[in-house]
Amino acid sequence: MRNYKMVLSYDGGRFKGWQKLGAGELTIQGTVEQAIQGLLGCPVEIHGSGRTDAGVHANGQVASMKVPFLLKDNFREELNHKLPEDICILQIEKVAGSFHARYSAVAKTYRYLVDTNEKPSVFMRKYVCHFPGELGVSRMKKAAEYLKGTHDFSSFTDDKSEEKDTTRTIYDIQIHCNKGRIEFVYRGDGFLQHMVRILTGTLLEIGSGNRCPDEIKSILAAKERAKAGFMAPAKGLFLESVDYD
Amino acid sequence: MRNYKMVLSYDGGRFKGWQKLGAGELTIQGTVEQAIQGLLGCPVEIHGSGRTDAGVHANGQVASMKVPFLLKDNFREELNHKLPEDICILQIEKVAGSFHARYSAVAKTYRYLVDTNEKPSVFMRKYVCHFPGELGVSRMKKAAEYLKGTHDFSSFTDDKSEEKDTTRTIYDIQIHCNKGRIEFVYRGDGFLQHMVRILTGTLLEIGSGNRCPDEIKSILAAKERAKAGFMAPAKGLFLESVDYD
Repeated sequence: MRNYKMVLSYDGGRFKGWQKLGAGELTIQGTVEQAIQGLLGCPVEIHGSGRTDAGVHANGQVASMKVPFLLKDNFREELNHKLPEDICILQIEKVAGSFHARYSAVAKTYRYLVDTNEKPSVFMRKYVCHFPGELGVSRMKKAAEYLKGTHDFSSFTDDKSEEKDTTRTIYDIQIHCNKGRIEFVYRGDGFLQHMVRILTGTLLEIGSGNRCPDEIKSILAAKERAKAGFMAPAKGLFLESVDYD
Repeated sequence: MRNYKMVLSYDGGRFKGWQKLGAGELTIQGTVEQAIQGLLGCPVEIHGSGRTDAGVHANGQVASMKVPFLLKDNFREELNHKLPEDICILQIEKVAGSFHARYSAVAKTYRYLVDTNEKPSVFMRKYVCHFPGELGVSRMKKAAEYLKGTHDFSSFTDDKSEEKDTTRTIYDIQIHCNKGRIEFVYRGDGFLQHMVRILTGTLLEIGSGNRCPDEIKSILAAKERAKAGFMAPAKGLFLESVDYD
């Protein structure tokens, strides 16, 4: 078998997330697998670096797949042609047999976009969380400092499976502000279900003055979802890139 | 009567252009007038700086309107609330009675976006002309030099009304290129019907090597639509701003 790594971007708006579901449910994985099967004539399973939720976008999702033969040079072009216009394969390369998009990943970067204007930009409206009003950026930056590092993030996830390890390391959180558009960039070794969206919701509540930056410490310590802020909507979230060694 | 100037942005994708048409036809002007009437309780006519075609977008269209009384301070917020999410009023201000969005305009700027990648960006796909392949940017810049200045642009319009003055002045054309995205910015005293789209189509044909930059001179001299290039699609075009003294 030959092993391939691919980098994808997609507008998640129409899809019920990355992970394949039952018949008739539109997903990214399902759509890409079906297009590949149409080209290769045999069923292929692709493994994403992780699931993205319904409505979440990607600039650089990574998936791996094993196929029984060498792919043609123009396979990427043919696949893009077969895929709908809201999924694009940016890159395909042959990799060592040991590579796995999920298990080989060492870091992930997510970007979250917020529009604080009275009415969101007509062109970006499908790709932002609309959160009108003034936000204290320095308050949010202070709170982000408490989030960085290795913590048990069980307050920041909706995943209730008890045995799961909920410790993650956030390497960096950047917050950029420009003309009412606020961009949160999170880089870490991995993120729990809904974690980036709950982190963002909590930071927005801190930015709007409804919570103090220091509260992050007690939220982390509580290990209780109810202590954290609201879950920001899927449409503002982008899986930016996945790093490998 | 009080006279007001408003600046609007809109995603033209869903609309049959700026200008009001018959019942059941979705237009920007019609939609905005109806929303204003809903707020003020009386019919109001708004005058745009010019018509934008079906599918053309705006970052800074300008319109003026006369109303029988002073507008409330929060009129813009109320109007935005009433308007669909693909039309946004960026600004409303009271102006001198002599101001007219169309007749007082001294310059207009249009932006045209082209994506030359094999498959257009999933996020920008509704706002670009997809023109895959390598483009000679210096060839297009050379051709743009011939277009600048005062010329009879009848080769670059589909408007066939004979008595109309087809002389216009282009103050500047800028061409920016970044990672397969090409941006054309046109600034002039006014543009004929379809002019920016035909200028762009002609520049793209020159950039792709199918025409020489020097051909601009003979196209202008011919005063014949058939001599110019194809009309680039509406969805890549944005009315950027309108200048007044």
